[in-house]
Parts: sequence; C-alpha cells; structure tokens
Amino acid sequence: MTTVHFDVSMSLDGFITGHGEGVGNPLGDDAGRLHDWMFGAKTGADADVLDELYARTGAILMGRRMFDVGEESWGDPPPFHMPVFVLTHKAREPLPRRGGTTYVFVTDGIEAGLDQAKAAAGEKDVGIWGGAKIMRQYLKAGLLDEMQIHLVPVLIGDGVRLFEDLGPGRIELERTRSIQTLGATHLRFRVAKRSK
Amino acid sequence: MTTVHFDVSMSLDGFITGHGEGVGNPLGDDAGRLHDWMFGAKTGADADVLDELYARTGAILMGRRMFDVGEESWGDPPPFHMPVFVLTHKAREPLPRRGGTTYVFVTDGIEAGLDQAKAAAGEKDVGIWGGAKIMRQYLKAGLLDEMQIHLVPVLIGDGVRLFEDLGPGRIELERTRSIQTLGATHLRFRVAKRSK
Repeated sequence: MTTVHFDVSMSLDGFITGHGEGVGNPLGDDAGRLHDWMFGAKTGADADVLDELYARTGAILMGRRMFDVGEESWGDPPPFHMPVFVLTHKAREPLPRRGGTTYVFVTDGIEAGLDQAKAAAGEKDVGIWGGAKIMRQYLKAGLLDEMQIHLVPVLIGDGVRLFEDLGPGRIELERTRSIQTLGATHLRFRVAKRSK
Repeated sequence: MTTVHFDVSMSLDGFITGHGEGVGNPLGDDAGRLHDWMFGAKTGADADVLDELYARTGAILMGRRMFDVGEESWGDPPPFHMPVFVLTHKAREPLPRRGGTTYVFVTDGIEAGLDQAKAAAGEKDVGIWGGAKIMRQYLKAGLLDEMQIHLVPVLIGDGVRLFEDLGPGRIELERTRSIQTLGATHLRFRVAKRSK
C-alpha cells in the first residue's frame, strides 16, 4: 500500500531552512549546514538513507513556492527522476523534463493532488517534499502516514520552522527507526493519532 | 573537571512545557506527556538515564520563576538532595529542607550563581534545571558545556519553547551519545562553538 511521507533535515532548534530563504537562495543562508550529512560529511549510512528514500518514492508533491524557488537550480535533468505534482492556484500545462521528471500543476487542492500522486506512484510511496507549509497541511489534514526527520546537531537560530501553527490537540508519533551518523540522527516516525 | 549541563524533555516540535504552565500547573497542560518516559512508560534504560543524571550532579541552578512555580509541589523533602541555587533579584536567607536540599538565593547574576554552584558541586557536575530562559542564558553566554535532550515522539503544538531568541550566529553541537527507548530518544550533545 502506498505510504504518504515527508523527509526533511531539521536543526535541533526546529528549522528546515536558514535565514533569508528565497529565489537564488533556496535553502537560506547557512542551510548547507543542514544538508552536510547529504553532501559533505556523508557516511555510508547517510548514503543508504538517501538511496532508500529515492528508491521508495514514486511521486513527489510540492508547493508552488518551493517550485518557483528551486526550479532553476534543479536544472534539466532535475534530480527527481519521477513525476512531481506542484500544488498551485494557477493552471499550467505539464512541463516534461529530461530523466523522467515531469512537473504537473494541480489546482484543485491537497487531496486532489494526493490522489494524482498516488495514482502516479503505483506500488511506491508518495513524498511531500516541501515547503514547510505544504508538509504541515498534509499533517494537519490527517493525510500523512510517516515522517523522517534528519536531526542535525546544530542550533541555527533563524529560518523557516517546520512545526508551528499545528492547531489544537497533540499529535502522537511512534518512533519506528533511528540511525545515528556523524552528521545527523535519522529518526523515522509513524503518525499515530491526533488527540482532542 | 566540573561540567555544566542541562537536561530536559522536549517534544519533537520543541516544547519543554505544555500550554498554560504556571503556579499549580508547573509543567503545563499535557506536559505529563513529555515526562512519560520518566514516570509512566519507563524502561530500564530510561531509569538508568535518570539515575545517572542524579549521580553526576552535585549542585543545581534554577530561575526564580521555576522555584516559585515548583516549590510547593516539590514538598519537603524535595526530590533534589543537593544544594539548589536560585537566581533572583530579591535577596533572601538560605532555605534548608530535609534530605540534603538547601535553596540558596543568588542575586548577583548568572556567572556568580555558577561560581557558587561549582564550589558546592565539588568533583560533580552543575545542572541548569530550568526554566527555558535560564537555560538559554547560560547557553548564549558560552557557559554551557553539554546538554541532554530527551526527545519525545509527540507534537504538542503549544507551550514554552526551549530554543528561541538565541541571537545571531549558529551554535555547533557534537552528538556524543544517543539512547533509544520506547518513550524517548535520549540525545547528549557537547556544545562545540558559536560561529560568526
């Protein structure tokens, strides 16, 4: 069965991008630090975590702002090699790229986007790849099955926080896996239930 | 050599108390959830983490508000069994309690408080036991050597955040230990350095 998940690097103080994130600076100042485990100080275990993520994911969902901010730097072929559904208010023709990535623009909301992504993913999983707002929307709507947080041992003090404005009630998680590497604590959680 | 550390339970969304924390409700609504690993679903490994904390700590520092909010519920004998230095603006005679706890009131700032606590701790360590503001003050002043975060798999959405208003520059940490239990991921970090 298709699992809906997100997967994100987060500082111990809860930020997933650095200060000043925007077009031309998609991760924000200093946010390279959040991705060192992926690009810099990568160990074999880090590479395995990343390979597994790409292998399990059959379709990606992202917000329009993340698309606008990232598209140029992703280039052609983009690094996804699978269909990418972009949630937007403005209808637009699909944009095929080399290497298996097609950007498909969805204008009828997060549930419709998820249905399309699930159909495209087949036996594989759907990944909500950002930004923070879209990830929160799926979490708050009860549509998220799982999350993996790559917790990075740094306090960056500013940027975009992943977990805020979650609304009333607590959300119980179950930690299903933990992998320690030099650069991160890779924590996987199942979303259990929302109380109240 | 004496190590200065803090040790705190934190939800995955960064809160160390629940909503509505105050006198008569020292942990806030729902914050029992943050301490389940300590009181409820405790495993042998959780108990070891807690025993080790008490064994290594020779003196405690806390803020005046935490003292005011907690004193009644701690009772007599309080659970500390060691000297507790309370940072306050109002001079007050030391308050001896049964079982080895004496509350000592320090009015000349965080460095003076630390000096007194270090002298009292002898060969053991000094623990900054809260609240959030005092823990941040020691961290920001570069006086903290180590922190242990008991990361609890829950999103509580509201309460007191530990890591905010940290000021400019990032603070690098080095994860020195990680223990997984059912109720928490016990992560220990050394404070490495502040950049910029």
